Amino acid sequence: MQKNTPYTYKITLAYDGSNYCGWQVQKNKTSIQEILQTAAAIFLKDPVQITGAGRTDAGVHARAQVAHFKSDQSLEQRSFLKSFNALIPQDIRIFKLEKTSDTFHARYSAIKKKYTYHFCFDKVAPPFERLYRYHIPYKIDVESIRKASQYFIGVHNFTSFANQAHEGSAAKNPVRELYQCELIEEKYGMRLELTGNGFLYKMVRNIVGTLLEVGFSKRSPESICEIFLKKNRSKAGKTAPPHGLFLDSIEYS
Amino acid sequence: MQKNTPYTYKITLAYDGSNYCGWQVQKNKTSIQEILQTAAAIFLKDPVQITGAGRTDAGVHARAQVAHFKSDQSLEQRSFLKSFNALIPQDIRIFKLEKTSDTFHARYSAIKKKYTYHFCFDKVAPPFERLYRYHIPYKIDVESIRKASQYFIGVHNFTSFANQAHEGSAAKNPVRELYQCELIEEKYGMRLELTGNGFLYKMVRNIVGTLLEVGFSKRSPESICEIFLKKNRSKAGKTAPPHGLFLDSIEYS
Repeated sequence: MQKNTPYTYKITLAYDGSNYCGWQVQKNKTSIQEILQTAAAIFLKDPVQITGAGRTDAGVHARAQVAHFKSDQSLEQRSFLKSFNALIPQDIRIFKLEKTSDTFHARYSAIKKKYTYHFCFDKVAPPFERLYRYHIPYKIDVESIRKASQYFIGVHNFTSFANQAHEGSAAKNPVRELYQCELIEEKYGMRLELTGNGFLYKMVRNIVGTLLEVGFSKRSPESICEIFLKKNRSKAGKTAPPHGLFLDSIEYS
Repeated sequence: MQKNTPYTYKITLAYDGSNYCGWQVQKNKTSIQEILQTAAAIFLKDPVQITGAGRTDAGVHARAQVAHFKSDQSLEQRSFLKSFNALIPQDIRIFKLEKTSDTFHARYSAIKKKYTYHFCFDKVAPPFERLYRYHIPYKIDVESIRKASQYFIGVHNFTSFANQAHEGSAAKNPVRELYQCELIEEKYGMRLELTGNGFLYKMVRNIVGTLLEVGFSKRSPESICEIFLKKNRSKAGKTAPPHGLFLDSIEYS
């Protein structure tokens, strides 16, 4: 085998985002990406760039984030997981390593993503859920939320539901398709499951914030159509807090 | 109504024990009891003693701890929960307040308690479970544990499974009855459920530690009988770590 022909590795990991500034490296803050790259530099004895599929924000969690990196070394899953996980904090756990094609890109090769947002509507929230569920101890109209959530399914221009990542930086193409936007009852409350071919910056939390305003009768379910048409972020609801949000899974072709 | 005839209140609360030195007030450490008594002094404008049913150790959690206190004031659950929970950290939540008989004592009136100990036997543990489940990434003989756990049911002298709370302070009566000691499969792993008329100091964690040694074939299931007979703490297994343990419920007559 020729030297310097690097392997491309796909890793799948879960993390509790509570203690991090998000996925992406930021100055003077601790990010998931930085933790992984520091550990990889120790493990591989070489600096390495680890590229994630979803750039989750501060406080957002992941059940199955995907990332890729390149290395000259031939790695084996069993020993890699054991040694690498020993180098990083317990709130980040890699649970899969796969050799993949050298054209694989965690972000650009993704064809489908799933996010879940968890709520607790009880008067008193269980303390074990405080970091993983948005606690709303008020009466809310679940049926209206359910009705409104239907309007998000399909192909839409999501400009009204996207924040700008940096000043003046709107997404080039704000059209996305959602296949699922579904409120499901579960232990301790409910979850909203969203599956789509891609998501704009803060799109899930802006959808959730808007749906909650429907639940509090500040908007009608039908008003979602108008919000889409305005293509203006200020027409939609507030951004819901990060800690209820989980990046659930990412699909590749 | 005569003044100074205090009401007796029973509160039921859940807590994440990760950040506390346990239930009981200790010098220079933060306990659940101290947090509650400090908040009660603010809320009731009077110092008050809050007595818990189970004195959980550092790192041990509770889904339904019970405590009692006395006050001259007539309190109503709805407003009490709202105001009192606002005075304490989110990892402690009171979810019930009841007026009760003035002879009620959270510890001495209890007739049955249930504890649960959670395990994860996967190679990689989910990061969201790290504070609530003992991670054992090794092969373990579950059937032997199940067999051994049967020996704990019934009336026994639990001296071999009890630590001394202070030097020389063995429990006056080390006989307890266990009604249940059962290994149950669940999401992310397994749990051991223990129900009994009372538990000695560190008894659950010592039972768990001994059962794990059975699971690792360091002891036979049958050896549990001998351990009981020796009435000697050094004959049983190590104390399992606190973070897998939950005080689940307490029953009163």
